[in-house]
Amino acid sequence: MSTVNLIEHAQASDEVRAVFDDIKRTRNLPDVNNFWKVLANHPATLKRTWESLKEVMAPGALDPLMKEMLYVAVSVAQNCEYCVASHTAAAKKRGMTDEMLGELMAVIGMASETNRLAIGWRVPVDEALR
Amino acid sequence: MSTVNLIEHAQASDEVRAVFDDIKRTRNLPDVNNFWKVLANHPATLKRTWESLKEVMAPGALDPLMKEMLYVAVSVAQNCEYCVASHTAAAKKRGMTDEMLGELMAVIGMASETNRLAIGWRVPVDEALR
Amino acid sequence: MSTVNLIEHAQASDEVRAVFDDIKRTRNLPDVNNFWKVLANHPATLKRTWESLKEVMAPGALDPLMKEMLYVAVSVAQNCEYCVASHTAAAKKRGMTDEMLGELMAVIGMASETNRLAIGWRVPVDEALR
Amino acid sequence: MSTVNLIEHAQASDEVRAVFDDIKRTRNLPDVNNFWKVLANHPATLKRTWESLKEVMAPGALDPLMKEMLYVAVSVAQNCEYCVASHTAAAKKRGMTDEMLGELMAVIGMASETNRLAIGWRVPVDEALR
Amino acid sequence: MSTVNLIEHAQASDEVRAVFDDIKRTRNLPDVNNFWKVLANHPATLKRTWESLKEVMAPGALDPLMKEMLYVAVSVAQNCEYCVASHTAAAKKRGMTDEMLGELMAVIGMASETNRLAIGWRVPVDEALR
Amino acid sequence: MSTVNLIEHAQASDEVRAVFDDIKRTRNLPDVNNFWKVLANHPATLKRTWESLKEVMAPGALDPLMKEMLYVAVSVAQNCEYCVASHTAAAKKRGMTDEMLGELMAVIGMASETNRLAIGWRVPVDEALR
Repeated sequence: MSTVNLIEHAQASDEVRAVFDDIKRTRNLPDVNNFWKVLANHPATLKRTWESLKEVMAPGALDPLMKEMLYVAVSVAQNCEYCVASHTAAAKKRGMTDEMLGELMAVIGMASETNRLAIGWRVPVDEALR
Repeated sequence: MSTVNLIEHAQASDEVRAVFDDIKRTRNLPDVNNFWKVLANHPATLKRTWESLKEVMAPGALDPLMKEMLYVAVSVAQNCEYCVASHTAAAKKRGMTDEMLGELMAVIGMASETNRLAIGWRVPVDEALR
Repeated sequence: MSTVNLIEHAQASDEVRAVFDDIKRTRNLPDVNNFWKVLANHPATLKRTWESLKEVMAPGALDPLMKEMLYVAVSVAQNCEYCVASHTAAAKKRGMTDEMLGELMAVIGMASETNRLAIGWRVPVDEALR
Repeated sequence: MSTVNLIEHAQASDEVRAVFDDIKRTRNLPDVNNFWKVLANHPATLKRTWESLKEVMAPGALDPLMKEMLYVAVSVAQNCEYCVASHTAAAKKRGMTDEMLGELMAVIGMASETNRLAIGWRVPVDEALR
Repeated sequence: MSTVNLIEHAQASDEVRAVFDDIKRTRNLPDVNNFWKVLANHPATLKRTWESLKEVMAPGALDPLMKEMLYVAVSVAQNCEYCVASHTAAAKKRGMTDEMLGELMAVIGMASETNRLAIGWRVPVDEALR
Repeated sequence: MSTVNLIEHAQASDEVRAVFDDIKRTRNLPDVNNFWKVLANHPATLKRTWESLKEVMAPGALDPLMKEMLYVAVSVAQNCEYCVASHTAAAKKRGMTDEMLGELMAVIGMASETNRLAIGWRVPVDEALR
């Protein structure tokens, strides 16, 4: 009855294997994370998600470390345990120091507090911000 | 019956006015946002929140623009309209370009999608990430 | 195309009117809130929701004011604007003072901050709390 | 100090046992899930919740499989691990295939992404949708 | 300082216009919704989002009406006002009756209640569901 | 790669130890919870969070048990497992009975259901509540 079924490289279809190989090559990893092994249960979602992610996380106006820290912030705010674990690790790999992690968490916590104060007190949006 | 009551500088107590003045001086603004005018209904919360925010948002291992963009990310992820409006404006003031805003939103959206995929498929945390 | 259609007492079916009358009598109000007028679009939901709410909010081990403040806390935490507005008003009607409102918001904000810190830092549950 | 206490059929009061028996009969199961064994700690909540659930999930304008998949969608969107596990199993029992599960997750993920884009970009509601 | 800027067809670049035309053709609409006009501020996100959405919402193991109702469920659970408005309208256009809408909301509400009960009581996942 | 590192009293810096000692004294506990041991990785956040929490949770217009139950409500609504576990235990220590816990959960569940009904049906805020 479990929803979880990990598709390993050896048992994967050609379509899935091509995506796995692209992930390993792009990220310079020996194997893909569980996330991708699970998505492989629905190959169309695996392919579309990886292609979107590759495009979104590529260097651009924001650098890759900045993007990973934003990913952590969203994952904490939405309370996704897997996502916090994997993207915190990815951010560390891209150069996030302990001090940066400490400040990242402090900002996330502070924003969560002021969010609730704004919502609870029903603060009207300032004219200048409309 | 409304919960919203905006305390203006002219009607504020000395305690509230001192906080308002510190906000205006620190941020170089002619007036404080509605957020602070509403918090002034509970002076202890106004003072504590401003002091915490000033400490958390000060330059450190992360620069102020980066911190504001993280604030936007949390606010979008938690769906706080006021907070999205005010912190997007603050990030623009600190130098966020249209292209940076576009990428910021793309990362937030992408993270929200993969969060749900990880949760819905019940992806087990990889041993290496525990 | 709007989903909102307010059913007024005069146009309501007998089944809906009976629920409206019970709400007005129980809460000693001249008319029901928009919430009930909208639920009346699906009479089975109107009836079931009102009967559940009446049972849950009745005096018990917790008093009605305490229950209304808990309702506000959940509504702020889940960011439901209508619910924050209506239950803050209901709590005031039951005796919540401005100082109590100030502390209520402070607790909600603080809890939101520490929630995120616990999630983001991935704090393991203490043995004694399992 | 744990909040969790599973009430088994053998130790249950008559009131609780009557609800357990109705759940087993209605769902054709040899035993009830942990969810019900925990709710039995507060018999009034057990009874009210089961009666509401039985009414809401009965065949109507939407068929039971459709309702279970909607339940999964809400559970993923609100990140309730227990609920995702139990309702995914229930949907499979009612006929959800692997391909349907794959599309279900894809829709949930996509909706989560566009939700955040709409919120983050502050998209104004179209006149025609008001 | 507003983040909202609606790009109309007449002022759009060729790249944006091609996406707008594809949306109008695919959905048989005279104009695109505000959502797309706002995304056009970041053409890469506009194009990627539309292509993903077209793929995910196409008829498959689940029919398009079912997919739209799932979209509504996620939007309500995540409290996205714009998304609730636009996808409820889309579901009605695809054949959702008032009775179906009533049951849809009832399921979403019920799931939200039992989600919180499962989380609050810390219900352990049944062995059979692991 | 894990983000979790528990700082014990023996290995803590003087600054961290002073906070730990104040927590133990204030709460009359032999040791601090894991939450504080983890926050100690970023001493500025440890100190600021403890001082804010001490101020917010002190007796005032609301009594400490009431405040702990509000904390539980927010934690359940935001789905923070650690926070539900620790604050339910703290509320029990302050006198919450099983019957109070049962009603607390019933109110949280009910509020979550009506929150979604208000959001999904797009209930307009009553004039009297604006």
